[in-house]
Amino acid sequence: MAAAPVWSVDPRTGKRREQVAVEATAQEVDDAVRAAHAARASLADRAVRAAFLRTAAEQLEAAKDGLVETADAESALGPVRLTGELARTCYQLRAFADTVDEGAFLDVIINHPDATATPPIPDLRRHKVPLGTVAVYAASNFPFAFSVAGGDTASALAAGCPVVVKAHPDHPALSELVAKVLRRAAAAHGLPEGVVGLVHGFAAGVELVRHPLVTAAGFTGSVRGGRALFDAAAARPAPIPFHGELGSLNPVVVTEAAADERAEAIGAGLAGSMTLGVGQFCVKPGLVLVPSGAAGDRLLTALTDAVSDTDAGVLLDHRMRDNFLAGVGERAKLPEVESPVTPGAGGEHTVSAGFLTVPAARLTADGEHDLLLEECFGPVTVVARYSDDAEAGAVLSRLPGNLTATVHLSAGEAAGEGRGPALLAELTPIAGRVLVDGWPTGVAVAAAQHHGGPYPATTSTSTSVGGTAIERWMRPVAYQGVPEALLPAELRDDNPLGLPRRIDGRLER
Amino acid sequence: MAAAPVWSVDPRTGKRREQVAVEATAQEVDDAVRAAHAARASLADRAVRAAFLRTAAEQLEAAKDGLVETADAESALGPVRLTGELARTCYQLRAFADTVDEGAFLDVIINHPDATATPPIPDLRRHKVPLGTVAVYAASNFPFAFSVAGGDTASALAAGCPVVVKAHPDHPALSELVAKVLRRAAAAHGLPEGVVGLVHGFAAGVELVRHPLVTAAGFTGSVRGGRALFDAAAARPAPIPFHGELGSLNPVVVTEAAADERAEAIGAGLAGSMTLGVGQFCVKPGLVLVPSGAAGDRLLTALTDAVSDTDAGVLLDHRMRDNFLAGVGERAKLPEVESPVTPGAGGEHTVSAGFLTVPAARLTADGEHDLLLEECFGPVTVVARYSDDAEAGAVLSRLPGNLTATVHLSAGEAAGEGRGPALLAELTPIAGRVLVDGWPTGVAVAAAQHHGGPYPATTSTSTSVGGTAIERWMRPVAYQGVPEALLPAELRDDNPLGLPRRIDGRLER
Repeated sequence: MAAAPVWSVDPRTGKRREQVAVEATAQEVDDAVRAAHAARASLADRAVRAAFLRTAAEQLEAAKDGLVETADAESALGPVRLTGELARTCYQLRAFADTVDEGAFLDVIINHPDATATPPIPDLRRHKVPLGTVAVYAASNFPFAFSVAGGDTASALAAGCPVVVKAHPDHPALSELVAKVLRRAAAAHGLPEGVVGLVHGFAAGVELVRHPLVTAAGFTGSVRGGRALFDAAAARPAPIPFHGELGSLNPVVVTEAAADERAEAIGAGLAGSMTLGVGQFCVKPGLVLVPSGAAGDRLLTALTDAVSDTDAGVLLDHRMRDNFLAGVGERAKLPEVESPVTPGAGGEHTVSAGFLTVPAARLTADGEHDLLLEECFGPVTVVARYSDDAEAGAVLSRLPGNLTATVHLSAGEAAGEGRGPALLAELTPIAGRVLVDGWPTGVAVAAAQHHGGPYPATTSTSTSVGGTAIERWMRPVAYQGVPEALLPAELRDDNPLGLPRRIDGRLER
Repeated sequence: MAAAPVWSVDPRTGKRREQVAVEATAQEVDDAVRAAHAARASLADRAVRAAFLRTAAEQLEAAKDGLVETADAESALGPVRLTGELARTCYQLRAFADTVDEGAFLDVIINHPDATATPPIPDLRRHKVPLGTVAVYAASNFPFAFSVAGGDTASALAAGCPVVVKAHPDHPALSELVAKVLRRAAAAHGLPEGVVGLVHGFAAGVELVRHPLVTAAGFTGSVRGGRALFDAAAARPAPIPFHGELGSLNPVVVTEAAADERAEAIGAGLAGSMTLGVGQFCVKPGLVLVPSGAAGDRLLTALTDAVSDTDAGVLLDHRMRDNFLAGVGERAKLPEVESPVTPGAGGEHTVSAGFLTVPAARLTADGEHDLLLEECFGPVTVVARYSDDAEAGAVLSRLPGNLTATVHLSAGEAAGEGRGPALLAELTPIAGRVLVDGWPTGVAVAAAQHHGGPYPATTSTSTSVGGTAIERWMRPVAYQGVPEALLPAELRDDNPLGLPRRIDGRLER
């Protein structure tokens, strides 16, 4: 059977740009994984890893013009957004280099012998070691930040794990370019090419998660694709951790008092957030609980004005466009659902933003309206009008897990009056990040970030953004009674690496 | 259908002692989970949790005589061991109370706004929150320390998670007694009974892991049972973390130089470790690589003497005895396997300890001898005689994951000469705890402990013993732009709870 070609496609026209590669055979996946596995010892030195990540950032910046041009040609996300996303990606690589340098992620804990414990404690020293080769499944919607050089790759390399990336079919040419930059950066530090593998094709992705030498996987994408890979990871003879970010509705609650206070600003802000990147963010607000009554009506008027003014946009590929049109069509047909601004087809290759409304009472019990509680990728949101707090709470209590949950409060509520505390308590169980008076789009790269949430937002309790994302690719090992001469440097009493450590119960810098 | 009775059985006679309970119906499992779920808010206060754990320890100690007597009647482990195990269990409860008080496990990270980051960082504050109701599957071999009041329960309660324990059928009467003590301790702090549920029966265990309100599970037991529950946890509509400790061979390597130096001491130490608790420890050394030649022969002579002197013992139940006899019989029949001390039936209800030998060359490639690389529960170990380091390394490289790996070195090797560093590097990838010149039995309760390892030792990267075991039952939540008045106390700038935190990159006490 001839190898299946991998085409780069222009979503603005639907036309093929060029053939980039061929889909990887099982043998080629095996080769890539074995090369990665063989390269793992080369990543053992933390200083080399940090330097590699910084060089990768530098070289991505040096190649910026060509990368952004290719990314734009394949994603239609536009040079401004893509330039910003590349900058974010480089910032992220450097942030993980800083994390590697500091070394707190090694989680060093030392117990000297203690005969008074029950049972007595021998000399015990624990740190974390890299798991081994990591499979990274790139996302479509962030061709830089959640793709070949994105957070999964950066955090895995930071942890000391080689990666094999399964390229996203929406930007195969960019994937090849970025992988080349990463390998060049690796070579600059004497690291073998195998530290960053790249494979194309659906079947290759399945082979990858099943490969015996793959020790963990990171994924950003759809519930359907992610769950299939999660299931494959769990069904292996030796199951592996599968850190998948699958889908999120990202509910927003606007209190009556907040709507009273600033309906127009909230309506305009919502329009901006839900249409950002043509509504193709994992954290797009997909369900907004707005009070019925005059203040809520004002919010909807502002939302209507702002969404109506939004230009039609190009989605990442034509299949997404088809799914968006089918998804909004099916939702709009439900009883009591209205479309103040109808989302739908723009031109032949574009879509226009819109939003739907529904009485919140339709969402408080099982029924056909549950479709509105599923993510719909693209520039659409659902506004559920609630008549009282109990009704809003009833809807929230039925939601599956989310990456984010947001509440807009009045100044008084933000100061602790009224429903503020109760709403935060309702939102925390259903989300990984809780926002007040903000919008969930825009995910900062920071130690305190958590980009994850209860299933299906994530298949684990981990984050894919921020410093703690490195934890996904490590496991602890304890050393008992190991003489000083044989201890890893991280665990020696004289702390030659200057690591923050917990020693006999005390945290030490 | 009449409810199936749950009998307490005396393994010394095989006779039923009394009917303790009936197996839980699906409805009863649902009741227990709902009661636990309803009780979760009562565990929100850390001070109450810590006090509860300490009271539980006190009341277990107060009930010691009756508990040990019942435990002995059901397990035949003997009052000395069981008294020690109860003390360990109480120590563990108090250690988790200390962990709760200190609060480092909340993993508080704060980023104040930083406009210089790419993209800019808003006010972001992250801590960890309890997952919710935890299912605990008790082990047979530690009726106190890995059962109703064991490490899984203690760490889950410490995390703020109510538990529903699936009792082990080998000690149902003890399980009921211990659950009553825990509930009495809970009541002393105003906590509802539901914080510690208890159910009996195989079907109840399956119901439990499938229950929509169960958010995570902890398990200690067999590969077969654990894998079935792991698979059920992964197959749920919303999968949950399943932290299972399933099985471990716990390889030991004795270097030529170590055997030269102290063959007799190593042989005697091995006999003690492999027969401790009638060989029913998860960390029993099950494969020992001993050099061929005179020094290794001396080691075997010492081992033979010591094992021959070991009294016959009673296993935890008659099914285990049957499995032990079948397992050692099947292994002993393999070509080139010898039995210097034949393990087998002692009296009608006992077993006698023994060990097998095999040339290591039989274990370096796939074949029928792979059976020797599978855990055999009970007082038996396999000694593989190796002719050179490469052969020993070839065996190690074929092992599945282990809780522990041990090496016995000469004084010179311990000082860094010869094979010491290479052996540690070979053992680290296959185990969660690496020991030098010790024995893996005896698992200290300490912050630096790691009782876990690559599959099948564990189904996750977590530990079931030691302070970090609490991490299994938590997930991070980040708060973005949340006004001071609405922030959880853990995340406020003035740090009213005095927690160790990471603020803008700095670790602060």
